[in-house]
Amino acid sequence: MLNVGIIGAGRIGQLHASNILSSSLLNLKGISDIHIEHLKGTIYEQKVPVITTDPEKIFQDPEVDAVFICSSTDTHLNFIKSAAKAGKHILCEKPISFNLGETEEALQAVKEAGVKFQVGFNRRFDKHFRKVCDTVQAGKIGSPHIIKVSSRDPEPPPEEYVKRSGGMFMDMTIHDFDMVRYLSGSEVIDVSVKAANLVDPMFGKNGDVDTAVITLTFENGAIAVIDNSRQAVYGYDQRIEVFGDSGAVSAENEAQTNVQIATKESVTIDHPKHFFLDRYKDAYIEEINQFAKAILEDKPLLCTGEDGYKAELLALAASVSWKEKRSVSLSEVFTVTAT
Amino acid sequence: MLNVGIIGAGRIGQLHASNILSSSLLNLKGISDIHIEHLKGTIYEQKVPVITTDPEKIFQDPEVDAVFICSSTDTHLNFIKSAAKAGKHILCEKPISFNLGETEEALQAVKEAGVKFQVGFNRRFDKHFRKVCDTVQAGKIGSPHIIKVSSRDPEPPPEEYVKRSGGMFMDMTIHDFDMVRYLSGSEVIDVSVKAANLVDPMFGKNGDVDTAVITLTFENGAIAVIDNSRQAVYGYDQRIEVFGDSGAVSAENEAQTNVQIATKESVTIDHPKHFFLDRYKDAYIEEINQFAKAILEDKPLLCTGEDGYKAELLALAASVSWKEKRSVSLSEVFTVTAT
Amino acid sequence: MLNVGIIGAGRIGQLHASNILSSSLLNLKGISDIHIEHLKGTIYEQKVPVITTDPEKIFQDPEVDAVFICSSTDTHLNFIKSAAKAGKHILCEKPISFNLGETEEALQAVKEAGVKFQVGFNRRFDKHFRKVCDTVQAGKIGSPHIIKVSSRDPEPPPEEYVKRSGGMFMDMTIHDFDMVRYLSGSEVIDVSVKAANLVDPMFGKNGDVDTAVITLTFENGAIAVIDNSRQAVYGYDQRIEVFGDSGAVSAENEAQTNVQIATKESVTIDHPKHFFLDRYKDAYIEEINQFAKAILEDKPLLCTGEDGYKAELLALAASVSWKEKRSVSLSEVFTVTAT
Amino acid sequence: MLNVGIIGAGRIGQLHASNILSSSLLNLKGISDIHIEHLKGTIYEQKVPVITTDPEKIFQDPEVDAVFICSSTDTHLNFIKSAAKAGKHILCEKPISFNLGETEEALQAVKEAGVKFQVGFNRRFDKHFRKVCDTVQAGKIGSPHIIKVSSRDPEPPPEEYVKRSGGMFMDMTIHDFDMVRYLSGSEVIDVSVKAANLVDPMFGKNGDVDTAVITLTFENGAIAVIDNSRQAVYGYDQRIEVFGDSGAVSAENEAQTNVQIATKESVTIDHPKHFFLDRYKDAYIEEINQFAKAILEDKPLLCTGEDGYKAELLALAASVSWKEKRSVSLSEVFTVTAT
Repeated sequence: MLNVGIIGAGRIGQLHASNILSSSLLNLKGISDIHIEHLKGTIYEQKVPVITTDPEKIFQDPEVDAVFICSSTDTHLNFIKSAAKAGKHILCEKPISFNLGETEEALQAVKEAGVKFQVGFNRRFDKHFRKVCDTVQAGKIGSPHIIKVSSRDPEPPPEEYVKRSGGMFMDMTIHDFDMVRYLSGSEVIDVSVKAANLVDPMFGKNGDVDTAVITLTFENGAIAVIDNSRQAVYGYDQRIEVFGDSGAVSAENEAQTNVQIATKESVTIDHPKHFFLDRYKDAYIEEINQFAKAILEDKPLLCTGEDGYKAELLALAASVSWKEKRSVSLSEVFTVTAT
Repeated sequence: MLNVGIIGAGRIGQLHASNILSSSLLNLKGISDIHIEHLKGTIYEQKVPVITTDPEKIFQDPEVDAVFICSSTDTHLNFIKSAAKAGKHILCEKPISFNLGETEEALQAVKEAGVKFQVGFNRRFDKHFRKVCDTVQAGKIGSPHIIKVSSRDPEPPPEEYVKRSGGMFMDMTIHDFDMVRYLSGSEVIDVSVKAANLVDPMFGKNGDVDTAVITLTFENGAIAVIDNSRQAVYGYDQRIEVFGDSGAVSAENEAQTNVQIATKESVTIDHPKHFFLDRYKDAYIEEINQFAKAILEDKPLLCTGEDGYKAELLALAASVSWKEKRSVSLSEVFTVTAT
Repeated sequence: MLNVGIIGAGRIGQLHASNILSSSLLNLKGISDIHIEHLKGTIYEQKVPVITTDPEKIFQDPEVDAVFICSSTDTHLNFIKSAAKAGKHILCEKPISFNLGETEEALQAVKEAGVKFQVGFNRRFDKHFRKVCDTVQAGKIGSPHIIKVSSRDPEPPPEEYVKRSGGMFMDMTIHDFDMVRYLSGSEVIDVSVKAANLVDPMFGKNGDVDTAVITLTFENGAIAVIDNSRQAVYGYDQRIEVFGDSGAVSAENEAQTNVQIATKESVTIDHPKHFFLDRYKDAYIEEINQFAKAILEDKPLLCTGEDGYKAELLALAASVSWKEKRSVSLSEVFTVTAT
Repeated sequence: MLNVGIIGAGRIGQLHASNILSSSLLNLKGISDIHIEHLKGTIYEQKVPVITTDPEKIFQDPEVDAVFICSSTDTHLNFIKSAAKAGKHILCEKPISFNLGETEEALQAVKEAGVKFQVGFNRRFDKHFRKVCDTVQAGKIGSPHIIKVSSRDPEPPPEEYVKRSGGMFMDMTIHDFDMVRYLSGSEVIDVSVKAANLVDPMFGKNGDVDTAVITLTFENGAIAVIDNSRQAVYGYDQRIEVFGDSGAVSAENEAQTNVQIATKESVTIDHPKHFFLDRYKDAYIEEINQFAKAILEDKPLLCTGEDGYKAELLALAASVSWKEKRSVSLSEVFTVTAT
């Protein structure tokens, strides 16, 4: 079993903690957070040997094999460097940082330490999307021509979150950028954004958007389109489609139930699952199991630091496209950030 | 939390054990089975305080609040009596016994001891079927007129299992008998069976059937029809429908994924989940949580000994109907078994 | 082209007339009805050479190749005999008569005249059901084990219709009896009915039922179940399923549109088509085209007098089963009616 | 009834002719084409009073109320002018011309003559899309934020067709441009295209593309995205979705049948309808009925010359966007074409 420490006990840190406690592959050795009062009286207090405000107690614990970095994005770089230096494998939530230079620095530290590093693109571990990707990779739909991702949150986050989110492209679309790379099996050439502030003026006030259609072209000729909204009132809308010269493969939403009710007035089916923790419940478990297996069996990770870096690059290109109202070439952004 | 002991560590006993270990409502204090070698080296050995071949160690443990009886059906009666006598609440797998007299004896012991008794009709705790039932009870489809249950196993059990199963009606249809009672909100008047041995001659050799269509009429006027097969090659087929004077409500199968693949040759969707442990994974968790809550909060059980008894009565009536090729009135069976 | 005369210009007669006028295979030479005032000013008056109250003008017209008998059931026998005697091919609406003796007499007249005779089981010509049947016949689902037909009208007919309908089994279930024969590729051994008067007391007052579940066993071992209601408030419900040892094939309802509307309150899809003329619009066209082709190319009919007779036999058996509350063997009914 | 003459007896002209012959609202008085040999021996020769190579025989027939212009696009302008001068109402296939100047000239002639002019955007008359539009206009999904159209042909047209097609945007996407205007209830601000030649090098050789993702922003803030392919091997793919602040409405493909086949190997559903004449069969009938009603009852047309003009403007803007690899503002194109 893989012994794990968690840095950051917010919503996502606690989700991982809970999943580890039910796991037969991972073992939870410690949790560190700047605040630990909220863990009092919880199952974590009973079952986790170390709960601390000092992350070094995790990093320096010789029994800990790997750390999950679930703290706020601005703290990732330092924690990654400390963890890497201590020889711990790392699962880091997305984005790695808000700044490609910092992300490069983090990945350089990981490389030098020779530890494994997985970025938290949980959707790669969703069984539906996994099957879509497997179908594409098996050649069943031929060469991909058009890739479509609909990704809409059920409701907008609070303003405090928006302020610290890095903007919609870095916070939300980043998952979709990773998904289109994953599905296309190719790298992006350019990014073109149409975006707007239609859901809530609060986004605009904070220099952000809440609605976008993003088009990308790939080296293999495929064209992808992502549509995003911060508010789909009917639930968490997460659909993908890959269309190629031999066919198409798509994944529909997961409904809350498969129940249909027919009356004189209407025929209703159930809403999509509403919340990401519900929609991706099994994907989060699969994500940490695959991480554990990659380490325990020394196999390649399914989702690497480079994947995290490239998705951030796309988010940055999207921001430039939106601000400058033009198509942005990846080479151009890469040059900017590399200097 | 509810402290639980498990009697019988076969497939279903281990399933409950695993669910309890991940639960925040139940606590696993002990497991008893006539064979315990197969538990060596498992997570149960690590995490369960008592693993024993002597069930009395469970029954006499003052810390144990409730027992799950998961042993073979022919042992249920004795274990129920011992558990009741020891003042333990009971969750017993179906059927309670193969014999209505024994079932009555068991329920009498439970009644005298004043303990709670839940029978293992896991499907009542499936979210899809629960929503169908709630919709009916809320009056949204009016008075039920026609109730349909398709219940088909993915593959036949081995001959050894069939010999000890009590026959298809008692082993498999019993879940469907409970479901139509649950959905109709009424009691059965008569049962009429058309059955056949079409899947495998082995069933016939053992005096059993593998295919059946069972029609039931209810006191409230509704008519139900159950269709069963021991072998649906495409997966575990579990669908229900209630049709009433104001509408209809139905639950479709759960597919393995929501992925669709369209090519020149075909458009394919995914198979239904294949195995009952997969299809009813969440229902099994909900089943024990509801049991724990009913005890911890002293609330009524959602599935009682009487429900178990009545489903057995229907299985018996179905056997008579099949053998005598006629419609069988419940009152008639009840008289027979009461004498 | 096939020259056709229509006997009976009610709803179904006019439907055929309209379809013939748009057809490139059939030509409408005349319409006869006891009332013809309602045809004044219609397109039929403009486009049909003969409109008459005297059916003999149709039967004796040497240019007429075939007649469609669309008058009330009690007039079928005489019209069939007249048409057969005049050497006209016949498409007759269902049932051929309310009385197996009369049906035999009609079919005898047809046989003696050597004309072709098709009974109006329009559903055999529905593209969905046709594909189900073709799939079964191609062996794709193996030997049929269970056949299911849901057949529910959107709303009850008026009392006047009910009085003259021959009862639900002869009027409505007759289509389903034909369908299970068509789908099973086998003949029925016995029929067992559970029926009730749940929709409207008017049916009971007229000695009829409005809700039924009918089970049939077949010579090839298959078991079929039909469920009927005179009132499905959500629309015309017409679904079939054949389950066999290698798989299952089913046809769902046709919805009015493929539109889905998702809001915070609900996710709605469209109702099934409401009316049989809408649901089976294309089937009615295919029915007459296949009739015309069978005659013009001298090929076997897809739906014969024998099919009509056997469905009536099943309707009669169902009536007996319902009245005597027992399973009825076809051989037994056949004996009764043959004397 | 409306008396109609048809100019151009190719595939679409014959389709209209056939629909008129079955119609109770329209009457076919004549057909004109430069070639009429292919009509010999057809139902048209029997049933249409005038079949001629001289279109003036149609235009000068005082009994003709309206003409359907179904000839090749390069002939539209002259025929429209002749028809308008003769006081005939006009239904003209899309595009009106390949050149906005000519289209303006045609519409000017129509305006001066005071006749009605409908452009052949048949999809507006599809029941599915009509319901989507009605749902949007009724405010049920609130303000539209994102509009999605998937429009993929089943197979590429022959090279001869491509050469004369005006390019994919003018030939194929023009329907989608009209659809997004229809669905948004607003006018386009700018158009941005990513396109490629992925299906067949023949398109590239002819300066055309076969695959495209086109993004449009609207005055009301909505963003639309159209994806096109000249070859969807699984059938004619025609789906739309409108997402707004109160919900979403979408229309799925029409399948050939509603049949599902489940075996051990696969669960298959049917392909989408393959051919546009099949998919839009009823829409073509509704299109001419609405045209006839608008004239007979002097009501507004549902699809005007201005709609034709604006869709052509969008096709032109798309061409510029594709060639210059930039977002193109409609105002800019309008200026270019107006000079």
